[in-house]
Amino acid sequence: MTMVVDLPRIEEALKGLDPVAAIADGFVAYSRGRVVVPPPGELIFRDPPGDAHIKYGFIEGDDVYVVKIASGFYRNAALGLPANSGLMLMFSQKTGALDCILLDEGHLTNVRTAAAGAVAAKALAPSRVERIGVFGTGVQGRMQLEYTAPLVDCRKVMVWGRRDDALAAYKDHMGALGFDVETTHDAGAVAAACNLIITATPATSPLLRHGEVRPGTHITAMGSDTPDKNEIDPAILGRADVVVADSISQCLERGEIFHAIEAGTLARDRLVELGNVIADPSLGRISDSQITVADLTGVAIQDIQISKAVYRALVT
Amino acid sequence: MTMVVDLPRIEEALKGLDPVAAIADGFVAYSRGRVVVPPPGELIFRDPPGDAHIKYGFIEGDDVYVVKIASGFYRNAALGLPANSGLMLMFSQKTGALDCILLDEGHLTNVRTAAAGAVAAKALAPSRVERIGVFGTGVQGRMQLEYTAPLVDCRKVMVWGRRDDALAAYKDHMGALGFDVETTHDAGAVAAACNLIITATPATSPLLRHGEVRPGTHITAMGSDTPDKNEIDPAILGRADVVVADSISQCLERGEIFHAIEAGTLARDRLVELGNVIADPSLGRISDSQITVADLTGVAIQDIQISKAVYRALVT
Repeated sequence: MTMVVDLPRIEEALKGLDPVAAIADGFVAYSRGRVVVPPPGELIFRDPPGDAHIKYGFIEGDDVYVVKIASGFYRNAALGLPANSGLMLMFSQKTGALDCILLDEGHLTNVRTAAAGAVAAKALAPSRVERIGVFGTGVQGRMQLEYTAPLVDCRKVMVWGRRDDALAAYKDHMGALGFDVETTHDAGAVAAACNLIITATPATSPLLRHGEVRPGTHITAMGSDTPDKNEIDPAILGRADVVVADSISQCLERGEIFHAIEAGTLARDRLVELGNVIADPSLGRISDSQITVADLTGVAIQDIQISKAVYRALVT
Repeated sequence: MTMVVDLPRIEEALKGLDPVAAIADGFVAYSRGRVVVPPPGELIFRDPPGDAHIKYGFIEGDDVYVVKIASGFYRNAALGLPANSGLMLMFSQKTGALDCILLDEGHLTNVRTAAAGAVAAKALAPSRVERIGVFGTGVQGRMQLEYTAPLVDCRKVMVWGRRDDALAAYKDHMGALGFDVETTHDAGAVAAACNLIITATPATSPLLRHGEVRPGTHITAMGSDTPDKNEIDPAILGRADVVVADSISQCLERGEIFHAIEAGTLARDRLVELGNVIADPSLGRISDSQITVADLTGVAIQDIQISKAVYRALVT
């Protein structure tokens, strides 16, 4: 029988599991070539404008295969509806049977994205994080901090945003969760105060400039998931000691790495894949004075891992 | 709220609707260029061998978009499980909301495939059908007859198969539904007795020979859905008066038309699309002495139409 699980039950199941470990294992399998993830399917709608993406794949020899369907309809706000929705489907890799439908409404995509940021920070942050800098006051600006902070033992935060009301709401929300939050409109102030920086914006021109970044800083860029988005100065990637991609093949087509290679500041052979850094830390940061950058564009292995983890929590 | 519908409720809903009309409308929309159906996604599994296909699309300006996931695991029989499984998902084209999950276990694919055969027979059969010839004793051999016979007002059947037990079971099953069934191992006998022929086998070399087909015959070939399958002699398509494709672009890559073009017996500019024949019957059969062939390879518009029809029957 197919199990159909709604969002409240998914949220309950998430409390009892470790998404960061599941996502880290997934990146290792991916970088070892054990994961089959074909290019996503895409549907584009015109009236009203919207899009749907279909991601699917499996780990060879695993029990399951996973299909995720996620959509964005950006005029939904006018109807009082969330812009994003979606679900994940888990099938048996042995019989094709549909084991489980996770009606997560897009929440598991947020969780697996935040968990990937935490994986990158755990692998690449300097040994002592003084203050965490966050660009962006949206869902990922919040969730990246929630998932990352426990791993680097730091609750001091500086958040950058464009709108005062959004900054105030961020400070209230994260303050209530025990974070010590400063707000700013000045990207340079974030770079001066923070040695772990997470960018989670839809920016299409760089927010963070090369000269501003302190030695020893780690930057995770996760907002830039399409070819037109760009959050950080290509020169930062060119001068960084270590540049890590969640998926090298995908980062050559979109994200910060794509922009830096296009700009001629970064050579392709300098890229290291996140799963390989997790498996062999000597490929990552080797001193507290290095600058490291991780570019996260999102890979279907994250969907596979988060849905498996939730399913296992539900059936055990 | 998402409606989740299991197979018994789907079968109940099917009793009150006309899938043939829904599929015919879909082919017309498809041939008018109003349907967006990207190439299907595919996953291939090795141990045990299996495959999954993900088809998706929408009619422009319609209310919904549809995703179908269907799999085949051919060692399932040893486990007492069906080889095929699948489901269809209906989403709003206006908000992205998941309206309905049809847990049809592959049944709606059988229905939409049989209904397409009926659409082709209705459009192309001669005015008086003497006897219906069926190649293949499987699910489609049965369902094609069930959906087609009422439209051509004929209950006399000759069925071709390789195995005696399968022929006897076919005769029992269809006899109980009121059909007058003769069985044979001789393809030529089917061609001699029947002027409406449906091929529904997984054959990889032609069963039906050119010289055997009578003037006035219509043949629907629907078994050949991959490049290696081939049910009818390429010379039949070469000499036919009308050759109809469910999707010209798809039939150039697989099915009987693909084989006939490869063999050099059929020119691409002779192809007519089924939706255009429905909209303008003068593109199809214009006399009772013509030989016509329809090649059905299966198009996602059929999935869109059948799932919409079932959903509407459920909510009204």
